[in-house]
Amino acid sequence: MGVVGVGRMGLTHAENLARRVRGARLVAVTTANEGRAERVRECCGEVAVYPGLDKLLSSETLDAVCISSSTAAHADNVVQCAAAGVHIFCEKPLALTLPDCDRAIGAAAQAGVKLMVGHVRRFDAGHVEARRYIEAGAIGKPVVFRAISGDVDPPPPSFADPAVSGGLIVDAMYHDLYLARWLLADEVERAYAEGGALVDPAIGAVGDVDNAVVSLRFSRGAMGTLFVSRTCRYGHDLRVEVIGDEGAVQVGYFRQTPVRLLDRSGVHHDMARTTPERLGDAFVTELQAFVDCIRHDTQPPVTGADSRATLAIGLAATRAMREGRPVDL
Amino acid sequence: MGVVGVGRMGLTHAENLARRVRGARLVAVTTANEGRAERVRECCGEVAVYPGLDKLLSSETLDAVCISSSTAAHADNVVQCAAAGVHIFCEKPLALTLPDCDRAIGAAAQAGVKLMVGHVRRFDAGHVEARRYIEAGAIGKPVVFRAISGDVDPPPPSFADPAVSGGLIVDAMYHDLYLARWLLADEVERAYAEGGALVDPAIGAVGDVDNAVVSLRFSRGAMGTLFVSRTCRYGHDLRVEVIGDEGAVQVGYFRQTPVRLLDRSGVHHDMARTTPERLGDAFVTELQAFVDCIRHDTQPPVTGADSRATLAIGLAATRAMREGRPVDL
Amino acid sequence: MGVVGVGRMGLTHAENLARRVRGARLVAVTTANEGRAERVRECCGEVAVYPGLDKLLSSETLDAVCISSSTAAHADNVVQCAAAGVHIFCEKPLALTLPDCDRAIGAAAQAGVKLMVGHVRRFDAGHVEARRYIEAGAIGKPVVFRAISGDVDPPPPSFADPAVSGGLIVDAMYHDLYLARWLLADEVERAYAEGGALVDPAIGAVGDVDNAVVSLRFSRGAMGTLFVSRTCRYGHDLRVEVIGDEGAVQVGYFRQTPVRLLDRSGVHHDMARTTPERLGDAFVTELQAFVDCIRHDTQPPVTGADSRATLAIGLAATRAMREGRPVDL
Amino acid sequence: MGVVGVGRMGLTHAENLARRVRGARLVAVTTANEGRAERVRECCGEVAVYPGLDKLLSSETLDAVCISSSTAAHADNVVQCAAAGVHIFCEKPLALTLPDCDRAIGAAAQAGVKLMVGHVRRFDAGHVEARRYIEAGAIGKPVVFRAISGDVDPPPPSFADPAVSGGLIVDAMYHDLYLARWLLADEVERAYAEGGALVDPAIGAVGDVDNAVVSLRFSRGAMGTLFVSRTCRYGHDLRVEVIGDEGAVQVGYFRQTPVRLLDRSGVHHDMARTTPERLGDAFVTELQAFVDCIRHDTQPPVTGADSRATLAIGLAATRAMREGRPVDL
Repeated sequence: MGVVGVGRMGLTHAENLARRVRGARLVAVTTANEGRAERVRECCGEVAVYPGLDKLLSSETLDAVCISSSTAAHADNVVQCAAAGVHIFCEKPLALTLPDCDRAIGAAAQAGVKLMVGHVRRFDAGHVEARRYIEAGAIGKPVVFRAISGDVDPPPPSFADPAVSGGLIVDAMYHDLYLARWLLADEVERAYAEGGALVDPAIGAVGDVDNAVVSLRFSRGAMGTLFVSRTCRYGHDLRVEVIGDEGAVQVGYFRQTPVRLLDRSGVHHDMARTTPERLGDAFVTELQAFVDCIRHDTQPPVTGADSRATLAIGLAATRAMREGRPVDL
Repeated sequence: MGVVGVGRMGLTHAENLARRVRGARLVAVTTANEGRAERVRECCGEVAVYPGLDKLLSSETLDAVCISSSTAAHADNVVQCAAAGVHIFCEKPLALTLPDCDRAIGAAAQAGVKLMVGHVRRFDAGHVEARRYIEAGAIGKPVVFRAISGDVDPPPPSFADPAVSGGLIVDAMYHDLYLARWLLADEVERAYAEGGALVDPAIGAVGDVDNAVVSLRFSRGAMGTLFVSRTCRYGHDLRVEVIGDEGAVQVGYFRQTPVRLLDRSGVHHDMARTTPERLGDAFVTELQAFVDCIRHDTQPPVTGADSRATLAIGLAATRAMREGRPVDL
Repeated sequence: MGVVGVGRMGLTHAENLARRVRGARLVAVTTANEGRAERVRECCGEVAVYPGLDKLLSSETLDAVCISSSTAAHADNVVQCAAAGVHIFCEKPLALTLPDCDRAIGAAAQAGVKLMVGHVRRFDAGHVEARRYIEAGAIGKPVVFRAISGDVDPPPPSFADPAVSGGLIVDAMYHDLYLARWLLADEVERAYAEGGALVDPAIGAVGDVDNAVVSLRFSRGAMGTLFVSRTCRYGHDLRVEVIGDEGAVQVGYFRQTPVRLLDRSGVHHDMARTTPERLGDAFVTELQAFVDCIRHDTQPPVTGADSRATLAIGLAATRAMREGRPVDL
Repeated sequence: MGVVGVGRMGLTHAENLARRVRGARLVAVTTANEGRAERVRECCGEVAVYPGLDKLLSSETLDAVCISSSTAAHADNVVQCAAAGVHIFCEKPLALTLPDCDRAIGAAAQAGVKLMVGHVRRFDAGHVEARRYIEAGAIGKPVVFRAISGDVDPPPPSFADPAVSGGLIVDAMYHDLYLARWLLADEVERAYAEGGALVDPAIGAVGDVDNAVVSLRFSRGAMGTLFVSRTCRYGHDLRVEVIGDEGAVQVGYFRQTPVRLLDRSGVHHDMARTTPERLGDAFVTELQAFVDCIRHDTQPPVTGADSRATLAIGLAATRAMREGRPVDL
């Protein structure tokens, strides 16, 4: 396999492919930056480094690629890889517009290659267990989906720029939006949102918000109430709960390590501050699922259509926020 | 003092006045039901029982009353007590319409009697501590208010009837709405809501919903995301958190007694199922605050205007839910 | 009822009798200290105050007394009250020596009055629930009893003096020792202990220790491992757990109020620092049980023999600590 | 590196060396069992397999070995590897007798090879953090060390046999004993123990106990109170706390995944049941530390002397249990 783009996520994927995913071998990566190339070699051992996707595809015979380039490049990268006949794992979201999603999905379908999108939290043991409880009827019929996604510090404005990231809701609430669909096994019909650049003026300056709340209405009547923040100074706060008419299931907590300090001022403990701390092995499990579906020729557990449906909710909520009215899907 | 109406809340107030509140003496209650009168005597010792407020006011010389009649009767009761020159503690909400609120507030002002409304969670140690943290700047500038209020089982349809209760949001989210204003020290400008009679058809039949989510926008930009439920089978789930740009404070938890059972199937513990379990002494603290403000001639910590402002949010959110659009206050 | 001695515990008992225990009336207390008499009147309303037990018994016709004098006076007080034919609730321990226990138990038996000892944690909802789990077989056969009892600050040396208090183990581990017998429904056969005046030299100067660990062996093979401290600066730490061959039950936790503060340095919450915070209504429940057993002429749930058996373990463990060898009971 | 013995622990070490430890390469393992050899190849890729240590040392030029043979063979294996001039990582305990420890330590010293023993919990992030708090003075002077080590199910009697395992205390309390020394930075002077074959008669039949409590006395006055169990059905329960004269630090908790189920019967969550679940990456960190100390020619963080001192406590406590008296070290 090759990895396209070795920024933070791409490097993680490359290292996992090189060292942890069974049945896969990391052959090459793309980067035009010699420093990143050096980091890749440190983490992954000797692999070929190409300046771009063209060169990668023309130089190597690959079974599959992992696309972790900038989001804006995803759709084009997918189309190009599909044309080359390699299976594709693409970081989320598949694209920033629905037509680009359709273009990517169509290219993969036409080429007959597998296309999977990086919905990593579906591979986290906690969320898997929550879904299992719901499917087993432990909470009855789902009534509400509540979620919070908080990052400790905002990204640089160049990245927060909605033209690059899709904006706060599409970018940072994306995981909660697909979890909502997946855990409730239902579709969203209507979205409403409030948001503001309340903390970081630099984010407001590029036209985005740094905090937002979203209300969702599902087709079978259930509701969603979500909060997303780029300025959760106290930790990387990922919490999801689904309350049904017979019980509830919660994922998420407030202790990272099992250490507590007790002194005259009270009881103190830590909290996860980064995604790897919080999600642990889910990135490995995710790539393993992709590799396994190629080796056994099965359907990917997350399809391009899943990413398109998630994006559609994010775009509707973003429009609702901008226009001050609920938006139907 | 006298207690007007001795249903569930009235009986609690009567017993607290009789046994726990310093500086007050329970003289009489009103009820037309002999069974309730008997219950009052068991809990409170010998007190006079009158069939209604007229008889109470004409027979006893009272310093103050506690009004815990049906919500629909609150405003008339307040007007009548004000005319009689007695100080008034009134259960929440003060009334079901803003004009009735104004009428009650005006009557008390004109008569020069104190009027306090039962915002009990402002007297719970947990919420008081949360407010203290926020005022001290521990979380920086508030960004979002998140809350959940869940009751284990729905009330009978006769009580859930919006004409009686004000509807789910006014009735059961009321406490979260005033906590939002109080904890953020800010006013709500816009409300949006989604709701449905998803679980209990009997509630739908009387024209109410049994579960709802509400989005709020505050005047200084902060947001709210709230959930209210009459069908939280797993417990009386009251949680509030305020996330600021420097930290967060949370009130609410999931263990009532300090007992945990561990067996081969996992770890198990209980959770509060009733308001007294969950709020403990807050009802005593609340009445004590009222009695103290009479004895020391100070302002009540919760005014009629506080209840009116809370009702206004609840009415706006209810309208938003019914009309499918955000409603400005 | 009368209350003999109105120090910290006596005042609590007096106030509970005056205001919270059904079916009892507080008639009089004894104290030679006018300041304490004043405190009693503030908390309990108008009650008679006598300088000592002689005067109390000769002046009032009582059904029962609550003895909360100094521990050294307990046995004599019990004997005198028994002779006067009044039922007796005595604070723990019944006495500091086994012969004094026997004398007190014998006097009550001969006079035909009820004698109950203040094993308050048997009336705490958490411990009651733990016992219920064990009796129901939820943890199988008990294998080990683990406990910690920590006070925030040591008492003054005059009180810590073993001649007054019985020493650390008898005084402060007493509650854990009777809980061990009660929860395991078994008797202790052997005790071993290590202890030292590690923190407070003033306690060492009066011949006591401020921290100790105790090992117990029960007649059916189960074991105990206990820690007691007078210098638990971080809180009033009361934890008990029983581990069986099928599961375990734990009582005790680390959050007093339901408030958590989250900031850049981590997550922070409080912890109980005093006995009333930690045990809540158990003191009321305890006295109610005593009053009820008089009114219904039933056996007290905690007998003089229970206190004697508990003291015997404490004395054995104290001797083991002093002599550096296990001591059989 | 080579791995001597590929039972459960040896296989873990082999896989970690093959895939996760930087700067090391797994060259060969020893096992006489073809099934185990197959398992090794599945986990670690192609490595040489030899029937025993003689053949391994004569066939390969190794920098270092990891000894994870049966405990009874440890000392001989260490002596043989030292003679061959390879650095040695040996699973805990180094040996079952103090003379064997001395023999192994002496051989490594004479050969000038590094000898490190597998004290894995010193490499767990939680314990490292606890030690950091204590060293920084956060809890003042340590007063007591409390620990519990519980395995879900007992090992087969052939393994529990004290001649093979050293007996319950040496085998299963070993980790707590070195943590006690390490966290308190103090030496144990006296040990006492109670134990019994209370649950599993098969363990009693081979002359061991399945549950025990141990009391420790440290040279500077601090104390220890420990419990060890082979029959903790509810989970793999590892907890350590150190209480000082200014505060306390705790390691260990009761939730493995961040999922909670709430239903009408209460709140439910899981708990770790296996060592890898509970300790996560500590086995990798441990081997990494060994590899790094070879590459940089530094002292191993855990020496043979550390293991000898730990064994000495375990042997003293075991003798105390058998003889019914405290045993001085």
